[in-house]
Amino acid sequence: MKVAKFGGSSVASAEQLKKVAQIIQADQNRKAIVVSAPGKRFSQDEKVTDLLIKLGEAYLADKPYQSEQEKVLERFGAIIDELELSERILEEIKDDVATVFASDYQQELKLEAIKSIGEDSLAKILSAYLQSLGLDAIYLNPKDAGIILSDEPGSAQILDESFELLYKLHERKEIVVIPGFFGYTKEGKLVTFSRGGSDITGSIVAAGVKADLYENFTDVDSVYCVNPTIVDNPKEITSLTYKEMRELSYAGFSVFHDEALIPAFKASIPVCIKNTDNPDGLGTIIVSKKEPNGNPVVGIASDTGFLSLYVSKYLMNRELGFGRRLLNILEDECISFEHTPSGIDDMSVIIRGSELSLEKEEKVIKRIKEELDPDTVYTERDLALIMIVGEDMNSTVGIAAKATEAFSRANVNLEMINQGSSEVSLMFGIKEEGVERAVRSLYQEFFEEEA
Amino acid sequence: MKVAKFGGSSVASAEQLKKVAQIIQADQNRKAIVVSAPGKRFSQDEKVTDLLIKLGEAYLADKPYQSEQEKVLERFGAIIDELELSERILEEIKDDVATVFASDYQQELKLEAIKSIGEDSLAKILSAYLQSLGLDAIYLNPKDAGIILSDEPGSAQILDESFELLYKLHERKEIVVIPGFFGYTKEGKLVTFSRGGSDITGSIVAAGVKADLYENFTDVDSVYCVNPTIVDNPKEITSLTYKEMRELSYAGFSVFHDEALIPAFKASIPVCIKNTDNPDGLGTIIVSKKEPNGNPVVGIASDTGFLSLYVSKYLMNRELGFGRRLLNILEDECISFEHTPSGIDDMSVIIRGSELSLEKEEKVIKRIKEELDPDTVYTERDLALIMIVGEDMNSTVGIAAKATEAFSRANVNLEMINQGSSEVSLMFGIKEEGVERAVRSLYQEFFEEEA
Repeated sequence: MKVAKFGGSSVASAEQLKKVAQIIQADQNRKAIVVSAPGKRFSQDEKVTDLLIKLGEAYLADKPYQSEQEKVLERFGAIIDELELSERILEEIKDDVATVFASDYQQELKLEAIKSIGEDSLAKILSAYLQSLGLDAIYLNPKDAGIILSDEPGSAQILDESFELLYKLHERKEIVVIPGFFGYTKEGKLVTFSRGGSDITGSIVAAGVKADLYENFTDVDSVYCVNPTIVDNPKEITSLTYKEMRELSYAGFSVFHDEALIPAFKASIPVCIKNTDNPDGLGTIIVSKKEPNGNPVVGIASDTGFLSLYVSKYLMNRELGFGRRLLNILEDECISFEHTPSGIDDMSVIIRGSELSLEKEEKVIKRIKEELDPDTVYTERDLALIMIVGEDMNSTVGIAAKATEAFSRANVNLEMINQGSSEVSLMFGIKEEGVERAVRSLYQEFFEEEA
Repeated sequence: MKVAKFGGSSVASAEQLKKVAQIIQADQNRKAIVVSAPGKRFSQDEKVTDLLIKLGEAYLADKPYQSEQEKVLERFGAIIDELELSERILEEIKDDVATVFASDYQQELKLEAIKSIGEDSLAKILSAYLQSLGLDAIYLNPKDAGIILSDEPGSAQILDESFELLYKLHERKEIVVIPGFFGYTKEGKLVTFSRGGSDITGSIVAAGVKADLYENFTDVDSVYCVNPTIVDNPKEITSLTYKEMRELSYAGFSVFHDEALIPAFKASIPVCIKNTDNPDGLGTIIVSKKEPNGNPVVGIASDTGFLSLYVSKYLMNRELGFGRRLLNILEDECISFEHTPSGIDDMSVIIRGSELSLEKEEKVIKRIKEELDPDTVYTERDLALIMIVGEDMNSTVGIAAKATEAFSRANVNLEMINQGSSEVSLMFGIKEEGVERAVRSLYQEFFEEEA
């Protein structure tokens, strides 16, 4: 059995849904389908989920919400019309909205339920459309599919018992169409994953049914080895490992939801990224282990908006527990950190800027001064991290030399280098202004020289 | 006022002591003299402090100790003879040993007192010799000088009140000769610094008297930019900062006692390393700030015997407090660590091999498995750290590129790179077997190319 998940742009319009139906028809192993809510049809368009959030927030704030509601219904209405499906489906969607508003849910759970209507409605539409084409397809609510989640609205986690329930999908003869992005707690409350969480649903279903393959259909032919907004027509990655994908996602590769890899990884289900507009293309496959292909570097990722918290104290390394106490303060203040490069008498903590508001920064610095008595403590903002990723890097002499040479050629100063023992990745910290120059230079070094 | 400290090899024989006296006579600002115990006269020779430790341990274990005692007295006797000093001094030394043995000190404090006899006797000899040359010199016991220490035998720390007492040395007209390595607690117990601690005494005295210069006379012309046992005739460092010296000392530069820099650093006293055999040479001066000299790299240090404790866990970076909890376990087990390079889902802790016996390793790994539930945890031993040090490195593009290129040329794989925000140093971890190759290659890159 294959699990196929179709992302927002793949289900943005009736035209796209027709392609989706063709893809499903083309391989009878595609028995479990997971869908997102309709995304943008053109760059100025609004995603249905964004419309639903506006609608929900207006309603909850007792503000006029009719225009938002109409926009949502128009989007679905147009699709239903063009696919020549029964008007009854649109009535059902209207009723769903009304039911949520009339319910006695708490505000937070009402918003969760409103947000889920995008995926839920699209799953209903797609299953009806597949039926209209003569396929044996049904809509399956996540509750009936067996997706049981922790009670954490907006960032729910899968509970282990789900997988056994999901395995029973094998007993069904129909193609099941499951809305992504949400599930239910044990008590029956509707809760959602974090934003973009339909990828997670797909991965969970794939793990549950022990799928041969989890196909993730999106709007790119494959994962590129570097951000295509920085480098024109970069090379495509044909295969990479879960670990490599994870490190790339971390630093800016947004093709695939970070958290979504976990269920597939744990169940060793290969994940394939494909383009709905080019389903016969090779795509990119994500696996546990892959054969070396001659280039130890798989990809170059970059992300901005980091900051470095720098602390120095003469003879720091003789003070047992200094590092631990510094991290303790951060944990106390609920600040998660990324890395902690250190010298003999100094230590830096790399933090995402969003984790440390200026107000929080002041508090943290005050505590560090009071509790650790350092010689110096300050932060430096507007840092970018650049990661060079590849599982075969650790057995190859000279990777760091090539990389640092590329930075040097781009005239970019290295604020930080962090290479752990694993060497799945080499990480560099630089000032944000140099990031594009550096990435282009690295791309040239690792992907163009060989050509 | 200048404080001059003479190390073990500078006071190993009467011949050397004559040079010391000349040095003292040559500059009337050399008013406070600190001495070590006699060191080796030739490579197979024994240091007096080693003889004293053997003597003390034999006595405390109720074993025959006469031969050790004779060796000590012979060493001093020969010096006294050759300098044509009164035999009374040797009698006094003999009495000092007997007094310690007859005292009702605890065993630990007896050993402390025995260890201190090397420096103490030498200070008595040198002051008598200076007097015999017609100089106004006196022996000054650390208690009378005002060196008050914490009650930590073998690793005592200076107490702040000492500095004010030491400042009173300005009231003395004589040249004072103070034995290094020991002081007294508030309660009057004799306690020593860590081994090699005469450098610390000198630094404390220099800070106390607010010296214009702290001269540290030893047996090398200056600090070399790289270990001369690895590279033949390396370049000399004419000036470097406290921070640079500290980072170099950390990774194997043993010219100057690590801890000894602190008092001088805090009081901003320049420290000069000079050769007793070549006192007119420039030597190496250690200061707070120095002018750039064109080469941002000041020195290359290396040290072996490190290990890496590697821990990986999928999605580690989402687990708030993971790093802190790992460090907590190490702190619990009293293991001090050096560095913590980390990837997204992995973290390494670099530890000196001596900190983690195989038995302790087993315990730590067991705790990590139980408490942190990682995917992988293991250690890798026999690692070397190589540090490239220089305060001006942080504003120079391409240092990392040159360094990694040098490793690559030496065909040495980089296990770890750790560059903090400060960039006083760039640190590399490699397998021990490659250390000499790598250091030579780095020396060539940073110190020979320019020539």
